[in-house]
Amino acid sequence: MLTNVEHIGIAVRSLTQSNELFQKLLNVAPYKAEAVESENVTTSFFRVNQTKIELLEATDPSSPIAKFIEKKGEGIHHIAFEVDDILAEMERLRNEGFTLLNENPKLGADNKLVCFLHPKGTNGVLIELCQDRG
Amino acid sequence: MLTNVEHIGIAVRSLTQSNELFQKLLNVAPYKAEAVESENVTTSFFRVNQTKIELLEATDPSSPIAKFIEKKGEGIHHIAFEVDDILAEMERLRNEGFTLLNENPKLGADNKLVCFLHPKGTNGVLIELCQDRG
Repeated sequence: MLTNVEHIGIAVRSLTQSNELFQKLLNVAPYKAEAVESENVTTSFFRVNQTKIELLEATDPSSPIAKFIEKKGEGIHHIAFEVDDILAEMERLRNEGFTLLNENPKLGADNKLVCFLHPKGTNGVLIELCQDRG
Repeated sequence: MLTNVEHIGIAVRSLTQSNELFQKLLNVAPYKAEAVESENVTTSFFRVNQTKIELLEATDPSSPIAKFIEKKGEGIHHIAFEVDDILAEMERLRNEGFTLLNENPKLGADNKLVCFLHPKGTNGVLIELCQDRG
């Protein structure tokens, strides 16, 4: 079960500038920042009800976020859905014909186990499944 | 106040095919379809907790959705935030320096009053404010 839109990830060039911009937009301050070394990004989180807005800045040109911005410019990078049981959901989606970008869950930001679906199979939308590690 | 991520709009070429795809992904059927004549689109809605996924198909080449797909391909088109008082929020954001794409609220899908912010001022993210007409 995909139980909630856990967060929306937005690729930005400068966390400093975008933190200021989203603080004005949402009228709330970011509540945490976090580096995700495996993805070469630093992130910043805002909360809007049950969904987070995650800003992502690349720390290295090899980062997926740097490549995304180079190709498409700044903008929405992915939608993350919360799941109760990521292994079961990965199996269900694989059986439905979706392509998983990682065969096993990996450690993402915010103490989550995550898995991405290939956007070619989802109308160009990069989808993340995430499960809280508790 | 932006109180909730009310929906995420996704531009698709074929509602028929994408309804099937998102039904598999979300493991839930779309709960309604609606034409928005002013935007030359037909839409389809899925519910995930307090957020809706809105699929948008152009009905005419002049539709903003047709132009979006032509330029960028299928994918996430906008994020819509629920507001209690759209006029007050439009005024607040105008004063913060954001550019509104419509000077007055207009009638959108799902019986909402809506206003869009120019993505050039929001890191490339097309943002919709929407207020339920009740």
